[in-house]
Amino acid sequence: MNHEQYMRRALELAMEAQAEGDVPVGCVIVRNGEIVGEGRNRREERGDATAHAELEAIRDACARTGSWRLHGCTLYVTLEPCPMCAGGIINARIDRIYYGAGDEKAGCCGSVLNLFEERFNHHPRIYRGPLREECEAVLQKFFEALR
Amino acid sequence: MNHEQYMRRALELAMEAQAEGDVPVGCVIVRNGEIVGEGRNRREERGDATAHAELEAIRDACARTGSWRLHGCTLYVTLEPCPMCAGGIINARIDRIYYGAGDEKAGCCGSVLNLFEERFNHHPRIYRGPLREECEAVLQKFFEALR
Repeated sequence: MNHEQYMRRALELAMEAQAEGDVPVGCVIVRNGEIVGEGRNRREERGDATAHAELEAIRDACARTGSWRLHGCTLYVTLEPCPMCAGGIINARIDRIYYGAGDEKAGCCGSVLNLFEERFNHHPRIYRGPLREECEAVLQKFFEALR
Repeated sequence: MNHEQYMRRALELAMEAQAEGDVPVGCVIVRNGEIVGEGRNRREERGDATAHAELEAIRDACARTGSWRLHGCTLYVTLEPCPMCAGGIINARIDRIYYGAGDEKAGCCGSVLNLFEERFNHHPRIYRGPLREECEAVLQKFFEALR
């Protein structure tokens, strides 16, 4: 699988979140070409403020790999991570992030601030991911339907 | 119960974390004088990078109160929150934070940065909590024993 296919899978997870009444955000974590963690936003579904797609995927990857250290992993997420998720990515020692849509209200890859350039003990590399337009369109449609 | 008693309970939870081989950090969440959430660091115990005391307590409080919105809640934690936990506190709309020991390596109440003064959609009030010396001593002893 290539970058686009991983982000395509994250988009599928985003649509599952939407089907459950949540803001459509999906995330996959990959190590050595294999998906080792998946997550989707479940905040409304679970009534849990911490159930964002990235933290769900990190928890899944920790469980599947048997360690809280996700060295060598790449995370694909359809929306720019919020501070909680950016912090989780740092805590899990994830190497690389590819994100789709930007988030002007909470994004921590540069939109509000760049948490990965601050003085913490781990610095993942950040890339603007593939399928950016599709990631943006999914969120735009969701919020338009709410109005 | 008063501020000191809530922080005392957080310290008890920190000691439970230590007994399980984790860095001793504990956290309680209070609403209207009642403890509605408790958590301790379980990173090593569970092999989960997201299992910090604050996120565990937030998840517990969301489950117990039946909502991801923790308006009107105060969080007591023995160690200054990391970016992940500070972000979780913002996401959960917690009103106030009292923390014990400072964290020069990851603290987001001012030690590395102050995440609560950034342009996010919620701004909890931050207080340096009671029992600061005890909170510091617990961590200091733990790390000295590791050397």
